Amino acid sequence: MKIGVLAGGVGGAKLALGLYRTMDPVDLTIIANTGDDIVMHGLHISPDPDILMYTLADRVNPETGWGQREESFRVAEGLKAYGRAVWFNLGDRDLATHIHRTAMMKDGATLSQAIDSIRQALGVTARILPMSDTYVPTMLDTDEGRMHLQDYFVRRRCEPKLRGIDFEGVAAAAPAPGVVEAIAQADGILIAPSNPLISIGPILAVPGIREALRGRREQIVAVCPLVGGKSLKGPSDKMLAELGYEVSAPGVAKLYRDFCATMVVDDSDSTAKPAIEVLGVKAVVCPTIMRDLADKERLAREVLRVLHSGTRP
Amino acid sequence: MKIGVLAGGVGGAKLALGLYRTMDPVDLTIIANTGDDIVMHGLHISPDPDILMYTLADRVNPETGWGQREESFRVAEGLKAYGRAVWFNLGDRDLATHIHRTAMMKDGATLSQAIDSIRQALGVTARILPMSDTYVPTMLDTDEGRMHLQDYFVRRRCEPKLRGIDFEGVAAAAPAPGVVEAIAQADGILIAPSNPLISIGPILAVPGIREALRGRREQIVAVCPLVGGKSLKGPSDKMLAELGYEVSAPGVAKLYRDFCATMVVDDSDSTAKPAIEVLGVKAVVCPTIMRDLADKERLAREVLRVLHSGTRP
Repeated sequence: MKIGVLAGGVGGAKLALGLYRTMDPVDLTIIANTGDDIVMHGLHISPDPDILMYTLADRVNPETGWGQREESFRVAEGLKAYGRAVWFNLGDRDLATHIHRTAMMKDGATLSQAIDSIRQALGVTARILPMSDTYVPTMLDTDEGRMHLQDYFVRRRCEPKLRGIDFEGVAAAAPAPGVVEAIAQADGILIAPSNPLISIGPILAVPGIREALRGRREQIVAVCPLVGGKSLKGPSDKMLAELGYEVSAPGVAKLYRDFCATMVVDDSDSTAKPAIEVLGVKAVVCPTIMRDLADKERLAREVLRVLHSGTRP
Repeated sequence: MKIGVLAGGVGGAKLALGLYRTMDPVDLTIIANTGDDIVMHGLHISPDPDILMYTLADRVNPETGWGQREESFRVAEGLKAYGRAVWFNLGDRDLATHIHRTAMMKDGATLSQAIDSIRQALGVTARILPMSDTYVPTMLDTDEGRMHLQDYFVRRRCEPKLRGIDFEGVAAAAPAPGVVEAIAQADGILIAPSNPLISIGPILAVPGIREALRGRREQIVAVCPLVGGKSLKGPSDKMLAELGYEVSAPGVAKLYRDFCATMVVDDSDSTAKPAIEVLGVKAVVCPTIMRDLADKERLAREVLRVLHSGTRP
């Protein structure tokens, strides 16, 4: 059974790891958000694909969910001494990834090809596709002005009040090679419990992807990132509220209902089931919080079971 | 007294350090070879300016004469795991320099501006100018084919037999801002005991520099890099021999005599004095081997004394 997953970083990687360990990884294709991508010190950084690959390769820093474990920051010390802004916290091992990717792209490789090279070197056997090979940075309009998502997220710690989101240049971007095909050919497609606005939103904004998903609506299952109306981690709830969206499982279902027939919500949101189903989205209630590896595998099995039953006539 | 120095890497840095500690550094301008420059992993590496700056900043690795002291190689381990060629031995602290320089140049800075930023951050108070802001890599024709100097030097350990040297693109290169002015305005100019073919040669090959030096011939003193007909370190002797040059102090004097009125040779070459002077180059005999800091300062004082006496009527 071929599975496609749309995923952002830390939250998406949890479900991706559960799937990676539960199913045959060669049947797993992860379509990663690259709206988080940023050029720092001339290096092309792709945080979400890296988080996904580091996680599946068991290299991720377990304390943070991003970066590599047993990391050092020798280069960053040097960059700081040269007066460079080092709020982005680039570790030495992580920098090797960014240098390799940037060098490949300077030599003419696409982002897809660079990611595939990193994936192979890390020994990850699932497919990891960027949403697009075009640089489409997520830009936020805030009460402190317009800023790159990473600036808002890392440097400003999500403190500015959000007024709007756009994905710069997205109208001219195309899905990366294989993305539309993976959506068309998957037996089931999962929307990971990632931030709907800045992790799943950029993927949906690439021309052609949302349309492709709409054609597979019955085979698509989203895992709701809100639990009891709150983000487990990260600013989904704050961002949704500031942009006037409903901060609840039904609120997320509204954002996805045009392409998603089923949503998995946490036990604590069981009372929201009618409000979701009235939108035309079937609600499946089960524990969704992934504290440890067993939780990730349990949720992976549950969503695979939902997909199986959904694909039955 | 304003002093200009033409210098390569390790040998040049020894004399430069002696001068830096002996005279007022603000009167010292070092014109550095950049024929050694190479792009590795997409990063612009300028070995000779870096060696000079690390040396003057007391950051250089004393074991090697290049790279930084107390260096680590965490990024290089990562690059190797990505299948990248890591024969160039880039340390983590050193990489911060290369990342900073490359990022500045990507943002539109010249090599001169990038070097000046690094110089300031390292607290070096002498002026360090690249010979040119244009990338003019030293390419060698050898019995193993054409290769970049660093390939010959580091990867192939100077083993291939040399057939020719050229500086790619040099005909279209210009001296970096300030180089010709520094030559014109210096009270004295030193040619450091660097490899005549691949450290001083590239500087002389930049259109306009050799001509500017010819106009200052009486104020120019070279320190012979050969002692007793041999290189102290590095392949000067082997390279000179393979290209059919005379491997001796008079042989070096022949290469420089059009722009250099005086050459300082080591005590062990005192018998070569007549053979040098018959070429129209005054020979000054003194100890030139720089084993320790005291040697460097002693030679610096000696060459400054020679320059003083040379500039007297």
